[in-house]
Amino acid sequence: MAKQFDIVEEIVTANRILANEGIVDSFGHVSVRHPKRPDRYLLSRARAPERIEASDIVEFTLEGDPIDAKNAKTTHAPYTERFIHGAIYESRPDIHSVVHNHSPSTIPFGITSTKLKPLLHMCASIGHDVPLWDSHDEFGDTALLVNSMAMGRDLAKRPGKGRSALMRGHGAVVAGTSIRHSVFISIYLEVNAKLQMQAMQMGKIKHLTKGEIDAVIARTGPYTLNRAWENWARRAGRPMQAAD
Amino acid sequence: MAKQFDIVEEIVTANRILANEGIVDSFGHVSVRHPKRPDRYLLSRARAPERIEASDIVEFTLEGDPIDAKNAKTTHAPYTERFIHGAIYESRPDIHSVVHNHSPSTIPFGITSTKLKPLLHMCASIGHDVPLWDSHDEFGDTALLVNSMAMGRDLAKRPGKGRSALMRGHGAVVAGTSIRHSVFISIYLEVNAKLQMQAMQMGKIKHLTKGEIDAVIARTGPYTLNRAWENWARRAGRPMQAAD
Amino acid sequence: MAKQFDIVEEIVTANRILANEGIVDSFGHVSVRHPKRPDRYLLSRARAPERIEASDIVEFTLEGDPIDAKNAKTTHAPYTERFIHGAIYESRPDIHSVVHNHSPSTIPFGITSTKLKPLLHMCASIGHDVPLWDSHDEFGDTALLVNSMAMGRDLAKRPGKGRSALMRGHGAVVAGTSIRHSVFISIYLEVNAKLQMQAMQMGKIKHLTKGEIDAVIARTGPYTLNRAWENWARRAGRPMQAAD
Amino acid sequence: MAKQFDIVEEIVTANRILANEGIVDSFGHVSVRHPKRPDRYLLSRARAPERIEASDIVEFTLEGDPIDAKNAKTTHAPYTERFIHGAIYESRPDIHSVVHNHSPSTIPFGITSTKLKPLLHMCASIGHDVPLWDSHDEFGDTALLVNSMAMGRDLAKRPGKGRSALMRGHGAVVAGTSIRHSVFISIYLEVNAKLQMQAMQMGKIKHLTKGEIDAVIARTGPYTLNRAWENWARRAGRPMQAAD
Repeated sequence: MAKQFDIVEEIVTANRILANEGIVDSFGHVSVRHPKRPDRYLLSRARAPERIEASDIVEFTLEGDPIDAKNAKTTHAPYTERFIHGAIYESRPDIHSVVHNHSPSTIPFGITSTKLKPLLHMCASIGHDVPLWDSHDEFGDTALLVNSMAMGRDLAKRPGKGRSALMRGHGAVVAGTSIRHSVFISIYLEVNAKLQMQAMQMGKIKHLTKGEIDAVIARTGPYTLNRAWENWARRAGRPMQAAD
Repeated sequence: MAKQFDIVEEIVTANRILANEGIVDSFGHVSVRHPKRPDRYLLSRARAPERIEASDIVEFTLEGDPIDAKNAKTTHAPYTERFIHGAIYESRPDIHSVVHNHSPSTIPFGITSTKLKPLLHMCASIGHDVPLWDSHDEFGDTALLVNSMAMGRDLAKRPGKGRSALMRGHGAVVAGTSIRHSVFISIYLEVNAKLQMQAMQMGKIKHLTKGEIDAVIARTGPYTLNRAWENWARRAGRPMQAAD
Repeated sequence: MAKQFDIVEEIVTANRILANEGIVDSFGHVSVRHPKRPDRYLLSRARAPERIEASDIVEFTLEGDPIDAKNAKTTHAPYTERFIHGAIYESRPDIHSVVHNHSPSTIPFGITSTKLKPLLHMCASIGHDVPLWDSHDEFGDTALLVNSMAMGRDLAKRPGKGRSALMRGHGAVVAGTSIRHSVFISIYLEVNAKLQMQAMQMGKIKHLTKGEIDAVIARTGPYTLNRAWENWARRAGRPMQAAD
Repeated sequence: MAKQFDIVEEIVTANRILANEGIVDSFGHVSVRHPKRPDRYLLSRARAPERIEASDIVEFTLEGDPIDAKNAKTTHAPYTERFIHGAIYESRPDIHSVVHNHSPSTIPFGITSTKLKPLLHMCASIGHDVPLWDSHDEFGDTALLVNSMAMGRDLAKRPGKGRSALMRGHGAVVAGTSIRHSVFISIYLEVNAKLQMQAMQMGKIKHLTKGEIDAVIARTGPYTLNRAWENWARRAGRPMQAAD
């Protein structure tokens, strides 16, 4: 019970951090797989991340059905794009938290098909590469929103066994082993994109080597995630919980 | 009466949001068509948007004459460029709110005649394209200010049936169906311009398709506008009113 | 006496505005010609603009000698570069306020000899062009600081009858008819430089025409300056004084 | 004793300044050589710079062993990369403070092998040039972290007798004669990098001449450092201590 409360506060903090660090604006969301029921996840009702409170957090099946259906029809309307989350949890048992955002520096990569690859050690967590998903390939002219499990499942294939994928004309999706992990990757995905845009104008980039990426990933654990989380949480006016 | 009060608070909030999000600096303005008298509109006296209070809001005829002429000559001097608003309301019965700004990322497009086109789903609301108006074409060497109905009417032709137009060496104008709509478009016009400037340096851009733009516009309703508005209003230190 | 007090508060506000708007960092300064003694000017002791209080303001002769010499040797050490101010007041009776800054977007223009010219109506006040002064031409290898009347006078020739000049590898100087005027020009010089850097990457720029620049300058009076000043002062946490 | 306390408060202020000015994010650190024992240095426990308090500061031997070993195993785990600091103090008796950061604008220089050179008088303190260290040259595929004295000593060779060096895919290191000096250089290294990236796109840059760099360095003393420090400390919500 106390545990359940913790996860809810953690997901609220994640939303506030992503807003405060400029990774989401009035849109975008972050979820966590239910700690006791792996066939469910927790996600806010449809609301801007910067405004989210504990009472906004709702429980969903992996298919995106709210457990409290009545509530969903009155005060707690769900995000249209919640299917992104369920589809990734369904196909990736190793994933426990998902972020969907419109992180500003990632957009130019998706619309120009420029390969986004890690160039800074802190950014190795984004993975060896960041595949691109274009909703138009499979679904044609849509509002680009992932509003069904069919679209969610198509998108979920793109990260493969990786950590992230870009969505053309839309944003990005990030998959982590914990809330702190998915938030960490999201923030450094934006950092890498911004730096790569700048460096591209200056000359040929020496990206991290494959071996370097693997070495950084191997040592990025709670020690690193918690140091950053404490800082980001406090900057967003949120308390630091002891890590899970 | 309570209704009239609401609209005034709403237009104050709109001004504060535009300032807080960096869409206007000490100049620029946002108006709303009078909810009961379609031949009038409400606009602040000449003052920086970030400073505007409810008592600054003034009622005008579409020709730009203040209803309270005496006030206009003492404490409530009007904006020189109020004609932008009336000219658009006059020619477009579907428009209920107009924004004029010097939104920073839009300026380079106007002065280099670079076509600004939506590349992100959130930005489809700017319309299929953003026409350019150059005051010099019709009026020659002026201070570039739209200081007469003649200039306002010439500018008002440019958006056509669309939502926005650029003004060379000056800024932009945005036309929406409500205050929340015109503010929403203004903010994402800036977002699109900034992203397009960056992406242009990286390669050929895949913009949204015509079908995608139409699909996004078709589904951008109160659900979307209110979520963003709640967030922007609170960020600007303003309360969220229940939508009209 | 009350008048003297006003000018001191005004110059404090000018310093705070320039810091708050990012035009100066820990260095840079703004002065005003003494309202009753045109052969003197008021300038802060050597201190970062964001920290300046009324008690920091010092009176100088145009040659840069502090009137209170004893104070200058103890608590109120003067800026090394105060000679910039006196040299401009000496050669330009029409000038009543001078700003010297390292405004970030102006620096790349000075070191690449790129012509900075107005492209936005708000920026016409910078003048038809912004000449470049390189201290190396006349003085060779120095610390680039204008630390004598000889250097100040050489620099003062550069704006000619204009409003501004760039200093290679150093910053800019701005000359206005009042404190509000020099601050206004300084802020829009930075705006113009930033926009021109962006637009240059996009294509050929259509700058303001000569006639447009003259038309804007002709109508930029207290109405415009005060609207901006009220906003900038409040943003910097300073009261708005009734204009001089 | 009072002296020891001062240095601790100074290093806390240095951390807060570097965070507040955007030179470090959740990572990066600044140390000072022990004022009475030149074979030791003071550095925070592993924590984000923005969060550091006086009680976090720990004393180390130059080899990176914490004097209070028990504490280091419980509440005060040290930074993995503390070896950067000891290795520089070991080889450079003239150095009394070291900063390691991931300063954003410096990264593109390190990964594109673009020479970073001073172009603004305030930036002369970075030195005539900023050598590049690539951990891959000597150590191959690693997590890029300087986690041993061997790596620290290899890196320490790179600044030579200078003030700074870039680390490919990682960040930068800065060496100063005092805390205020190393913080000052770090901030203007970022400024120079950002301006150089912009100016490179505009044309050929006229950098400071050798003579100019030497002249600026010769006159950059407490007068300059303290003016900036007072400003940065206050901006970060920290008191200004009388200089050492």
